[in-house]
Amino acid sequence: MPLTDALREIVGERHCLTDPTMRASYETDWTRRFSGPALAVVRPGSIEEVAAILRACADAGVGVVPQGGNTGLVGGSVPRGGEVVLSTLRLNEIEGLDPDAGEVTVGAGATLAAVQAAARPSGWEVGIDLGARDSATIGGMVATNAGGVNVLRHGPMRQRLLGFEAVRADGSVLRRLPGMPKDNTGYDLGGLLAGSEGTLAIITQIRLRLVTALGHRAVAVIGLDDAGAVVAAAGRLRRALGTIQALELFTDEGMELVMRHAAVAAPFASRRPAYLLVEVGSDAGDPGEGLADALMTLDVDPEAVAMATDVAGRHRLWQLRERHTEAVNAEGVPHKLDVSVPIGRYAELVERAPSAVADVDGGARTISYGHVGDGNLHVSILGSSPDDHRVDDAVLELVLSLGGSVSAEHGIGVAKVDWLLRDRGPATVAAMRAIKDAWDPAGILNPGVLFARDS
Amino acid sequence: MPLTDALREIVGERHCLTDPTMRASYETDWTRRFSGPALAVVRPGSIEEVAAILRACADAGVGVVPQGGNTGLVGGSVPRGGEVVLSTLRLNEIEGLDPDAGEVTVGAGATLAAVQAAARPSGWEVGIDLGARDSATIGGMVATNAGGVNVLRHGPMRQRLLGFEAVRADGSVLRRLPGMPKDNTGYDLGGLLAGSEGTLAIITQIRLRLVTALGHRAVAVIGLDDAGAVVAAAGRLRRALGTIQALELFTDEGMELVMRHAAVAAPFASRRPAYLLVEVGSDAGDPGEGLADALMTLDVDPEAVAMATDVAGRHRLWQLRERHTEAVNAEGVPHKLDVSVPIGRYAELVERAPSAVADVDGGARTISYGHVGDGNLHVSILGSSPDDHRVDDAVLELVLSLGGSVSAEHGIGVAKVDWLLRDRGPATVAAMRAIKDAWDPAGILNPGVLFARDS
Repeated sequence: MPLTDALREIVGERHCLTDPTMRASYETDWTRRFSGPALAVVRPGSIEEVAAILRACADAGVGVVPQGGNTGLVGGSVPRGGEVVLSTLRLNEIEGLDPDAGEVTVGAGATLAAVQAAARPSGWEVGIDLGARDSATIGGMVATNAGGVNVLRHGPMRQRLLGFEAVRADGSVLRRLPGMPKDNTGYDLGGLLAGSEGTLAIITQIRLRLVTALGHRAVAVIGLDDAGAVVAAAGRLRRALGTIQALELFTDEGMELVMRHAAVAAPFASRRPAYLLVEVGSDAGDPGEGLADALMTLDVDPEAVAMATDVAGRHRLWQLRERHTEAVNAEGVPHKLDVSVPIGRYAELVERAPSAVADVDGGARTISYGHVGDGNLHVSILGSSPDDHRVDDAVLELVLSLGGSVSAEHGIGVAKVDWLLRDRGPATVAAMRAIKDAWDPAGILNPGVLFARDS
Repeated sequence: MPLTDALREIVGERHCLTDPTMRASYETDWTRRFSGPALAVVRPGSIEEVAAILRACADAGVGVVPQGGNTGLVGGSVPRGGEVVLSTLRLNEIEGLDPDAGEVTVGAGATLAAVQAAARPSGWEVGIDLGARDSATIGGMVATNAGGVNVLRHGPMRQRLLGFEAVRADGSVLRRLPGMPKDNTGYDLGGLLAGSEGTLAIITQIRLRLVTALGHRAVAVIGLDDAGAVVAAAGRLRRALGTIQALELFTDEGMELVMRHAAVAAPFASRRPAYLLVEVGSDAGDPGEGLADALMTLDVDPEAVAMATDVAGRHRLWQLRERHTEAVNAEGVPHKLDVSVPIGRYAELVERAPSAVADVDGGARTISYGHVGDGNLHVSILGSSPDDHRVDDAVLELVLSLGGSVSAEHGIGVAKVDWLLRDRGPATVAAMRAIKDAWDPAGILNPGVLFARDS
């Protein structure tokens, strides 16, 4: 029986798409940079169907590309050519919300927004939030170990996982549900699947540990002399304060763009080369008290400090950081890099990125901002042709020379396969590859992602 | 060349122990339940020596048992018979303490106490504390994913890992140092090594992310009608308060023993069947305020609540929970089980454990206490013969029937290999075994741990 017939039998006519028009939206990612024709798109409605699909594809020697919300940036969720796309979108049940334990079980295809909506009425949060929340699925977020702005406080998806259910390439099922926070029984397979980008198994269900927000917040923006002073201040605040929610860096050049394009006011009259935004909280009382005490010990210029505890004031300060993306986009089509370095090298990355870029493209302008508490920097490059990859390469080379990571958040996908090898080195990639080959010897799952196909 | 000669050449005469008297302390664990003769004990002083030892042992087909402080409880760090013990104690350098970033690089053989002492002068904490701190090594704590009382707040060792260096069975080196919090470049090998109990690689260095304590604390003990009410109250507090540091359960029977043997006073005049201890904190102001508000919404009996914000008062309340071990030991030699269940089944475990035990040994008495916020329960059984494993089995069977874990903290070692299979099932153990076989096909690393030798 041809594979498509077998797939039709498994999921039903309606959920096996072979017509090019029907397949189209599954074949191109939303950046439109990655696309490829699929043999078929299947939309299983149960774990049994997922297992049967995998067995059928393995028998036929055809690769399977798992796809959630298709919001990735590295081409990991669209076919490279001829694979079967396995869409998890019908596996979207949200069940077993335990309002006492603060846990919920969600199908891989449930969107982040749907899970947030399910959790909030009982006072819980997912602990991770992303702009793509209406499309991004929990399965995809686990597979890519998604992060976002709250990583400093709640960790990435890997840390929110209590339990999981997944299907291996041979159709065998791994299940630890509902799971528990303390569980030392062999290898942490849930943690291994988190960030494995669909190359080891297809995640079908996840049990999430929910979180709660601090009821009272204070936000401060501090002007400082350079990125090094921002890193040092961030470290001292993290040491002095146990309730830190966020530590963000931006520069005066970036703030200038935000003020111009997003009509946000400066935090204080005096301008400084670099800024640190810090957010703290408390369960009761004024969270600004502890923050003010801590700022005092930093010996910062009182004319370069703004603090707010009310909702409107906090929002105003956060705008200075959050509207960077929009402000940068208003200047042109930027090259965007999402990288990470050891915190001890963070200032160096901020300081050296502009000249590294200018060395290969004299007309280019670099704007950096990011999560200084996590070592994660967003580097945007304006004024360079979209097709000129030299500026991207220059930043990634700088990151590697600082012992950093070419992908803080978005993963490797197909886009950064060569960089993975350079970043992690042959011994580490061989160790990863050994796991891949042991679990999926025929290379059925997401072929071409993480590892080169012929390697 | 005989293996012992080769080992002598690698580490030097002084650090290759073959004499039985010299080997003895490395051949028996501190519980004295596990021991076996080693071919030799080697104490490498560098990663190069570790790699050379592994290559020599692989060539000779002799197993290697990595050993840190030898404080485990499941026989994972002493020879089963004829292996080479690789002691990490000389790999104890502590370097690169970054007081701004709150990070430190430590050799696998550094003790927890040494790292705590190195971190504290600059205001940082390791975030994990154990009674065995003077002997337990960081390498061993990573290999067993150690937890302790602060897991609810800071996670287990796996979550404290920024970077690592380790040597595989073939002598190849995996290194991600110093590492960074956000790093999505392939499989999370550091997280995989955490909890792998020395079966995948020998950890030589670790970069730790340090933490800071909340400056102000409040502790409350609340008397409630049963374990179910404790679980529900714990959940509601976790939802209401963002600064929860600990949530602990104990019973009136356990408190009775603590009062008798440790001369600790009752928290309030009224006695209740079960108690919840909760600790919260703040960076400034009175942390008791938010806690008092939250307790009010719980509708608890004011006569069964005690709260303290001063050091002495907090210490007094904590004693009620912390001195359980000592009080139980004063009654006799207990069977001790460290298990975990989904939080939704926690009350059921507390309620059913005594009768499950009594069903197999009518004279036995069960005292339970533990980390209700993590689903982790310590079950102590008094009045049953130390050699009678039926009571242990009865508790573990109950745990499995509740979807729980036979090892919350201590791991599998050689002691629980059969239970691992029952707990995780054949598909999951096969998936783990596939990783082991891919990384260590000859079974050189810690043979007999996690997996049966002939399986």
